[in-house]
Amino acid sequence: MMPAPVDHYWCQYAVIDGAVDHGVRLGVSAGRFVSIDVNTDPEPGAARLAGLTIAGMANAHSHAFQRALRSRTQADRGSFWTWRDLMYRAADRLDPDRYLRLARATFAEMALAGITCVGEFHYVHHQVGGTPYDDPNEMGSALVAAAHDAGIRLTLLDTLYLHGGLTASGYAPPSSAQSRFSDSSADQWAERVSAFCAPSPVAASQHRVGAAIHSVRAVDPTAMRALVEWADEHHAPMHAHVSEQPAENQACVDHFGATPMELLASVGALTPRFTAVHATHLSTTDIDLLAGVASTVAMCPTTERDLGDGIGPTGEFAARQVPMALGSDSHALIDLLEEARAVELNERLRSTRRGVHSAADLLTMATTNGHRCLGWDDAGTIAIGQRADLVTISLDTVRTAGTSPHRAVEAAVFAASAADITNVVVDGRAVVTDGQHVSIDVAGELASSIHELMDS
Amino acid sequence: MMPAPVDHYWCQYAVIDGAVDHGVRLGVSAGRFVSIDVNTDPEPGAARLAGLTIAGMANAHSHAFQRALRSRTQADRGSFWTWRDLMYRAADRLDPDRYLRLARATFAEMALAGITCVGEFHYVHHQVGGTPYDDPNEMGSALVAAAHDAGIRLTLLDTLYLHGGLTASGYAPPSSAQSRFSDSSADQWAERVSAFCAPSPVAASQHRVGAAIHSVRAVDPTAMRALVEWADEHHAPMHAHVSEQPAENQACVDHFGATPMELLASVGALTPRFTAVHATHLSTTDIDLLAGVASTVAMCPTTERDLGDGIGPTGEFAARQVPMALGSDSHALIDLLEEARAVELNERLRSTRRGVHSAADLLTMATTNGHRCLGWDDAGTIAIGQRADLVTISLDTVRTAGTSPHRAVEAAVFAASAADITNVVVDGRAVVTDGQHVSIDVAGELASSIHELMDS
Repeated sequence: MMPAPVDHYWCQYAVIDGAVDHGVRLGVSAGRFVSIDVNTDPEPGAARLAGLTIAGMANAHSHAFQRALRSRTQADRGSFWTWRDLMYRAADRLDPDRYLRLARATFAEMALAGITCVGEFHYVHHQVGGTPYDDPNEMGSALVAAAHDAGIRLTLLDTLYLHGGLTASGYAPPSSAQSRFSDSSADQWAERVSAFCAPSPVAASQHRVGAAIHSVRAVDPTAMRALVEWADEHHAPMHAHVSEQPAENQACVDHFGATPMELLASVGALTPRFTAVHATHLSTTDIDLLAGVASTVAMCPTTERDLGDGIGPTGEFAARQVPMALGSDSHALIDLLEEARAVELNERLRSTRRGVHSAADLLTMATTNGHRCLGWDDAGTIAIGQRADLVTISLDTVRTAGTSPHRAVEAAVFAASAADITNVVVDGRAVVTDGQHVSIDVAGELASSIHELMDS
Repeated sequence: MMPAPVDHYWCQYAVIDGAVDHGVRLGVSAGRFVSIDVNTDPEPGAARLAGLTIAGMANAHSHAFQRALRSRTQADRGSFWTWRDLMYRAADRLDPDRYLRLARATFAEMALAGITCVGEFHYVHHQVGGTPYDDPNEMGSALVAAAHDAGIRLTLLDTLYLHGGLTASGYAPPSSAQSRFSDSSADQWAERVSAFCAPSPVAASQHRVGAAIHSVRAVDPTAMRALVEWADEHHAPMHAHVSEQPAENQACVDHFGATPMELLASVGALTPRFTAVHATHLSTTDIDLLAGVASTVAMCPTTERDLGDGIGPTGEFAARQVPMALGSDSHALIDLLEEARAVELNERLRSTRRGVHSAADLLTMATTNGHRCLGWDDAGTIAIGQRADLVTISLDTVRTAGTSPHRAVEAAVFAASAADITNVVVDGRAVVTDGQHVSIDVAGELASSIHELMDS
């Protein structure tokens, strides 16, 4: 067998081992880094990446269809709960073809923003009314195809959703809008998802399947336990929405005498493969439970501020070594650099202290931690043996101009935006060059797929 | 005399009287709107503006030189007060030539962001050590020239700065770093500023002079009163930093038995020409003082979150009809659309309610209110007789694609960024076309002027 050829990238600046190096020559073969040299001169034959090159970013929490709501919910007053009604109306209009087109455009917008991997928290499983499609995983398959077309990796976090809500007196049945989400039982969920994994393994090269508990509002403890067991058996990542809203905490305490985090801990969910999404309104005990188990917290600050969720305790997470990842969630914006700085800026607003989270720490959340919580330990860092994902941020735009090279990480995290990303490489393949997706007219496909869904 | 010729712009969508109209044909003559027709078809000869066209935006609070600090202070822990030390070190390196180049590039970055008018809160008046330049207004003249070159209007808020700080026992003399800022007395300030206004009137077509009280930390009540009188005589806008930090409030109450706002009210500052900048930490009495006097509050949310100032009471300002304007202040970012949405998103984080400030209200802050508080009542609205300032936001970028036209204002405020602005017209002259400044290499000039200042 012929050895795989080696391609070379020459980066003006790149983040290696957490620091900015100059003249970084990267050898890539079979989609992985095989050599790293620093302080080199540019050479003919190596693709030249001007600016700061970082590892690929991972979007740890996405609901792709909610991209259709961007700017369309902003005319309405209300709260998280009234916003949710609007979101349900959009979900109601999805079908597999529409979802493929919308998700393909949304994932391509992510690629332009330097996102090389997405965790799709997927719960729109069935037809309107709740009848499964002929292929009960048709919606999930559409998402896999969409990520493939967009050129990014996908962890499909297939979500269990059984109940319509939780009050002090117990669970309500799914509403009409929620009937599409429900598999009736954890066993039926497991049967469907196991079938989805059967033709291809749980983890393929470009996508893998994980499990998700929608929330304590939608999944009871017995069903949670079944999901934990499935995820343990399959060594799969498992995610859950946790304590996004105080009302959820109150209902959980009223009915179970336990917080959502305590409930999840009681069913064995808190493993290193677990990610708590939002984790905004936690008790001291909740944070104690998270500390030391190597579970991740996925912060979604641009969504949390859009929905008025509140500011999560990220300073305490950092102090207790709870790893954090980042997600664009509702896609009010798709910009992980904005998510990263929002973690620190929210903390500044609350504590009036600067520098609780360093730029390097915030970048680790966007890259290494995000990939890890989605089940890709071999991505998110520029290091030999890791998947060859690269994201290049221009230091010569009006937003980034004037930085000094040794502050390039600070410039990337605190001054740059998705609009400053020029090149994206996933598994050694160029997906974005000169700020353009290599195969998709992203704005055009966003417009057509959203108008088809929302205005037809 | 020949009548001035009439140019025409055809806007796909434009905001007229607070609503989105389609096919808006604008006649412009001698720098002002002379006709507005809606629901028209595009015609040959009219400049075609695709997307949403809004009035010019006004940046109500700027310290141009602080653009040099972007990303360079983010590696440091600390607070507002340690950040201020870094800021003083940059101020110390300014001279008129350097400031002209840096401000020209910074104002040009503003033009690219759709800012057609800037309020420059200017206090770096004198040579290092405090000796005036041969022309004591040489620094101010550099700022006027910079705005002229960049093609935007300027209100030079010439700032009185006398003392080095306030404690319970009284005022401290200016520190070595602050000596450049001080005119020694309010009379000397008035003499200098009156001389600056003498050759050209206080208000020229493209710039005007206003007064500023740096803060209660730097100006005593007797001097404040002198400034108020100067501003009254000259019908000039007057601005002041107010209650950005709790420590300022505490010192003021300890020494004077009054809050900063109470002190300003006692010297007669609270007129419709007054703007309180920040106004983050206000008492109920302070808000009572602001309500009903038609003074403006300038919110600077991206700076306030960068510096950990806290979240100002914008919901209460709105409820009490206190007009708000927006400023990019320290230029951690220059993006008034981001400032606008941050006002609402901060309120959502605090109150967990959505829709306290509508997109239309936020846009009014960025346009009409900003111009008015800078002394330009004839700008900031697309209406006959107003100055012909236009800003066009593309609705076809990856950030804005998929909006519906009747939600275009929501898309502009909540989804768009400075990067989506394609065209800017000031007083009927094109300053930005196709997203590029017509005469300045903005990123190049930012890089060269900042490196000259900070790295040489």
